[in-house]
Amino acid sequence: MAGSSFGNIFQITTWGESHGAALGVVIDGCPAGLPLTPNDIQLYLDRRKPGQTRISTPRKESDAVEILSGIFEDRTTGTPISMLVRNTSQHSADYSEIANYYRPGHADYTFDVKYGFRDYRGGGRSSGRETIGRVAAGAVAAKLLLEFGINVTAYTESIGPIHINMDKFDQNDILSTPTCMPDRDASIQAESFLADCMRSYDSAGGVIECTIDGVPAGLGDPVFEKLDANLSKAIMSIGAVKSIEIGAGTKAASRHGSENNDFFYMDDGKVAKRTNHAGGILGGISDGSRIFLRAYVKPTPSIFSPQETVNKQGENIEISIKGRHDPVIVPRAVVVVEAMAALTVADALLMNASAKLTNLKKIYDR
Amino acid sequence: MAGSSFGNIFQITTWGESHGAALGVVIDGCPAGLPLTPNDIQLYLDRRKPGQTRISTPRKESDAVEILSGIFEDRTTGTPISMLVRNTSQHSADYSEIANYYRPGHADYTFDVKYGFRDYRGGGRSSGRETIGRVAAGAVAAKLLLEFGINVTAYTESIGPIHINMDKFDQNDILSTPTCMPDRDASIQAESFLADCMRSYDSAGGVIECTIDGVPAGLGDPVFEKLDANLSKAIMSIGAVKSIEIGAGTKAASRHGSENNDFFYMDDGKVAKRTNHAGGILGGISDGSRIFLRAYVKPTPSIFSPQETVNKQGENIEISIKGRHDPVIVPRAVVVVEAMAALTVADALLMNASAKLTNLKKIYDR
Amino acid sequence: MAGSSFGNIFQITTWGESHGAALGVVIDGCPAGLPLTPNDIQLYLDRRKPGQTRISTPRKESDAVEILSGIFEDRTTGTPISMLVRNTSQHSADYSEIANYYRPGHADYTFDVKYGFRDYRGGGRSSGRETIGRVAAGAVAAKLLLEFGINVTAYTESIGPIHINMDKFDQNDILSTPTCMPDRDASIQAESFLADCMRSYDSAGGVIECTIDGVPAGLGDPVFEKLDANLSKAIMSIGAVKSIEIGAGTKAASRHGSENNDFFYMDDGKVAKRTNHAGGILGGISDGSRIFLRAYVKPTPSIFSPQETVNKQGENIEISIKGRHDPVIVPRAVVVVEAMAALTVADALLMNASAKLTNLKKIYDR
Amino acid sequence: MAGSSFGNIFQITTWGESHGAALGVVIDGCPAGLPLTPNDIQLYLDRRKPGQTRISTPRKESDAVEILSGIFEDRTTGTPISMLVRNTSQHSADYSEIANYYRPGHADYTFDVKYGFRDYRGGGRSSGRETIGRVAAGAVAAKLLLEFGINVTAYTESIGPIHINMDKFDQNDILSTPTCMPDRDASIQAESFLADCMRSYDSAGGVIECTIDGVPAGLGDPVFEKLDANLSKAIMSIGAVKSIEIGAGTKAASRHGSENNDFFYMDDGKVAKRTNHAGGILGGISDGSRIFLRAYVKPTPSIFSPQETVNKQGENIEISIKGRHDPVIVPRAVVVVEAMAALTVADALLMNASAKLTNLKKIYDR
Repeated sequence: MAGSSFGNIFQITTWGESHGAALGVVIDGCPAGLPLTPNDIQLYLDRRKPGQTRISTPRKESDAVEILSGIFEDRTTGTPISMLVRNTSQHSADYSEIANYYRPGHADYTFDVKYGFRDYRGGGRSSGRETIGRVAAGAVAAKLLLEFGINVTAYTESIGPIHINMDKFDQNDILSTPTCMPDRDASIQAESFLADCMRSYDSAGGVIECTIDGVPAGLGDPVFEKLDANLSKAIMSIGAVKSIEIGAGTKAASRHGSENNDFFYMDDGKVAKRTNHAGGILGGISDGSRIFLRAYVKPTPSIFSPQETVNKQGENIEISIKGRHDPVIVPRAVVVVEAMAALTVADALLMNASAKLTNLKKIYDR
Repeated sequence: MAGSSFGNIFQITTWGESHGAALGVVIDGCPAGLPLTPNDIQLYLDRRKPGQTRISTPRKESDAVEILSGIFEDRTTGTPISMLVRNTSQHSADYSEIANYYRPGHADYTFDVKYGFRDYRGGGRSSGRETIGRVAAGAVAAKLLLEFGINVTAYTESIGPIHINMDKFDQNDILSTPTCMPDRDASIQAESFLADCMRSYDSAGGVIECTIDGVPAGLGDPVFEKLDANLSKAIMSIGAVKSIEIGAGTKAASRHGSENNDFFYMDDGKVAKRTNHAGGILGGISDGSRIFLRAYVKPTPSIFSPQETVNKQGENIEISIKGRHDPVIVPRAVVVVEAMAALTVADALLMNASAKLTNLKKIYDR
Repeated sequence: MAGSSFGNIFQITTWGESHGAALGVVIDGCPAGLPLTPNDIQLYLDRRKPGQTRISTPRKESDAVEILSGIFEDRTTGTPISMLVRNTSQHSADYSEIANYYRPGHADYTFDVKYGFRDYRGGGRSSGRETIGRVAAGAVAAKLLLEFGINVTAYTESIGPIHINMDKFDQNDILSTPTCMPDRDASIQAESFLADCMRSYDSAGGVIECTIDGVPAGLGDPVFEKLDANLSKAIMSIGAVKSIEIGAGTKAASRHGSENNDFFYMDDGKVAKRTNHAGGILGGISDGSRIFLRAYVKPTPSIFSPQETVNKQGENIEISIKGRHDPVIVPRAVVVVEAMAALTVADALLMNASAKLTNLKKIYDR
Repeated sequence: MAGSSFGNIFQITTWGESHGAALGVVIDGCPAGLPLTPNDIQLYLDRRKPGQTRISTPRKESDAVEILSGIFEDRTTGTPISMLVRNTSQHSADYSEIANYYRPGHADYTFDVKYGFRDYRGGGRSSGRETIGRVAAGAVAAKLLLEFGINVTAYTESIGPIHINMDKFDQNDILSTPTCMPDRDASIQAESFLADCMRSYDSAGGVIECTIDGVPAGLGDPVFEKLDANLSKAIMSIGAVKSIEIGAGTKAASRHGSENNDFFYMDDGKVAKRTNHAGGILGGISDGSRIFLRAYVKPTPSIFSPQETVNKQGENIEISIKGRHDPVIVPRAVVVVEAMAALTVADALLMNASAKLTNLKKIYDR
């Protein structure tokens, strides 16, 4: 219980360092009977792979998943699903220099204090590669949610000052643009902006949006396991995320109640809402409308321009980071946000199964 | 495990409804030997009490705490600390009307779907009174943190359009102004703004800031139990919070890496940072500098102006909420934010005790 | 998380010391919609009350339960159920002497080492009164299980050398004999044996048996959350229990496989077993037949004859324990075994709800 | 959370099926700085390997461990330790027949009911090979305990009617006899007894004893996380164990208090006990003396003599199990008992680090 597990019933445990032998995840608590093949996982992992475009690091990582347990005749068996991805393209030599100092914006210093030493190769456990396990598990959660008509979609809303235009929203562009922006024009501008960043040895941040459609009302628990509280933890646990908002988010703080309340009305015999400032969650429980969240991602801390820092000997030094680094984290984090959101909702779906006696009676009636 | 517990080692379980017999909390995992008296708890509870000023509901709630276990000769014994507050001033009759419809912005509808029915009196478990248990437990966590020189302070940063001026920051004003603003001038403006809101049968939102000083480097775990991820869950689990940010937060998303990175330097033999955009946390682990977070609170959903909604019979209706309601949630939520932050850091402090062999050797060396 | 919680979904947290203000329990995770009144709880608590017969301590404890939350209109709401019992008949003065030394067979010494000091009054948290919370929660679990046709029954199998005769088994005698033996003749002999024990200032041990009928096949998880593993933890966590066996138990160790295997056969269209040496659990999962377990309880450690021990000053001393103590723990522990078994099975019932996709489809199909 | 995790802080998650690609374990929560190499693990795994003697199955399994994460420069880093063992010698064809019926004494039927279908090859997740993950993790726990002078030792006490003679106890024999008996003469008799079993197509059960020396007083928590309760769960979660006893165990039930109480005395300035019927645990907390437990193991259910059972079509059939099976489970389970005991005590050691304020002050004093 050193922080590598997530979820109550649909529970995952990730492991692995950037330059170790492999990275992976164990899912314990996936219901039996879900059709699943390695390809379901690979499609998600390929979305976080580097080396695909000129705005991501030129490292080539095949990141091929191997499923080691929990699947029989292409269906989940209810027992733990263990998956791993071998590290193949890691150049440990690149990192020998950073063993001795603390990169600004990275976890080098805090790992050293906490554990007494650290696996400094490529950031070790604090590397972005840690998300491989999340994404592999998230692919399973997403597949499970689809069985219940629940769809999770994340995309880049902005990179630096370039925002998408919602009027031009095209979901296909999420997978086809190098920025994961659902607006091809914005994407082209963002690419140009990032090229400028790289020329000035700098990096940029951005915003990821995520929608979850088809969630039945009733998921999430009151008080601490509120669906929005768990989504927040899920998303804020992604390395570079510095803020999360649900629905109207920060805007709600400057509104009046009369502006922010969503009125209920009957829509074709079902309870619906005129607006959705709540982002699909009331009192921590899904209300049946679209869940909407936004994650704010800091700029890549690995920049090539000179920076001040200290070394392990306690000396002030100046460094210039080398190696291969993305000028922006956002596009590769899109699928991670999607994965974490899927994991959170899948767990809430399972948790809610025993919330009322009538649910249990449906299962156990003899 | 229906969401009423929080924390890994310093673990709390809250219980109670707005109009039930009582509300309370059990703390399991508080270390033995901490001096503690009911007065330590009461001071915190009194900060969330209503009926104290004209901008909060005129309900009079004595909210006197009773400690039922876990204390012996004014020190914690290491066994569970059970605390309760009796409900005394509840007028259940006020709420009979809302039994039959769903108030906009409230959890009435989602509770009904999830559980099949609900304790509708005063919002039941989704009432703001649910936070009594959090605050009582937070008082114990804060006392524990003080033993290690750790201080948690929350205050109102803004109400509606009125923000504090950091140049006028006076910590004493947090407890002495009705708004919990550490700036008396801003507080007076905010009170005037809220008086306008009430005249127009409306409500307002706002922002709460929280600082945590004296946290040693090394608290928090990589990956899912990151200190910022747990703070986010803690704060977002407070009823009306819609967004959380750590350090630079949303601003980080529009910055360059060269602007956002905090440079390390040696300060009197200790590692320090030139800036603190990270908000005191790197890679999910405290870095020894001030932890800083901001919570965005929605406006009170209970407003007196007419609203559309539906009833349990599935009919569209118009309602006018009656009763006693604060025009703004923020001031009474300040101590709740403080409590949740204290609980999160206390748990991280205990979790970290076994992070490295050298820590354990200090305890078990014979 | 200092050990006062039990269960994964149907989770209880108990609190309270023998001579504190009160003892109690919070149940989080009980499904909504279960009919429940204080009387359901009181019936169970009355079974563990002392002062009822001449073989139990003459202390009079009313042990009246108060339900503080989680019930509305006589049904569980799905939110935490908080229950407490006030301590009324405690004579703290009786215990002042034991503050300074360690009673053999008690937890005085280990509490002092672990926590640095202890609430010595009546054993504090290690008192038998700690089980009040378990029994109150167990009553709720038992009521839940009855909704699914599951019955838990515990009784005294032996006290010292006196065993029941299964041919004379009469379930009514469990509640009507002072020994909780379902065999009136054996009970009379046991009472006589205990009278001898008391005359010689000594105490006795015994065995409790527990049967669980009507459990559907499929409860319990493979590997660590095996139903028998959780039953073992549940029962062994009761103060004086020193051994647990499931089904054939210790006898299985001296048998051949051909003797111990239970053959399956079809019984009226359903899978059944010719024998039940397994005690109703195969591979950690219930098989649909009766679950059967046996708990071995040590003799009361509080005896009046002189005993050697040490005091806090590290001196060898001789003591004679005074006060009011049962000569045997078994009869009052019967309902505790029943409660712990019910809690374990109730939790397994809820956990299993999400074990396969087809279960979830029954709940969420729209 | 489908039952594949164990431990609170030192937490393991095992995965893998008998005939899947591999089996393994992830340890999350092992303190940083522990020296560890693959050889430390392999030594333990080799003790549970089959094919070593004529009383175990002739299957040859190399069971070579691969450490994939959490180790850097031969020390634990504090991040998850992932280990796997590839399945190499599995003959899936051997098992095609059992796909269609339920073997007596096995989990075939209960898995089918719980999950709707099962990986029938070699028992899938319910195979004895599942213990590979436990043993690999247990090796790490045992290494950690050695740092604190804590030693765990398990051995075979009996096989069928053949018991060891404690006067002949020789610890070296545990590893050198095929039965893991610390008494060479008894081992020879047991081998002869097992040869008879095999000739009559039958199997035998037995008893494993385990001692834990050097445990400091204070480990284990009151109430549900008692050290003996957790040891019971740990040991009873091993496939074929049907009973567990601590210290005097079942014998305590027929004793008087005057016989069963252990008197305290001062031994060279330290608190000691004249006897140890308690088995080193008082009130769920270690008392500083030897911890002693006994596990009763049922006979191997896979026997070659004809047996009645039913098939998936609901027909009564007679079967004769084929394949390679040990005539007794005990010798190969000895190291599993040792592993589970080590894991339980290691977790208690870490949990206790935050039990009192003075412990924490030792770590955090600045």
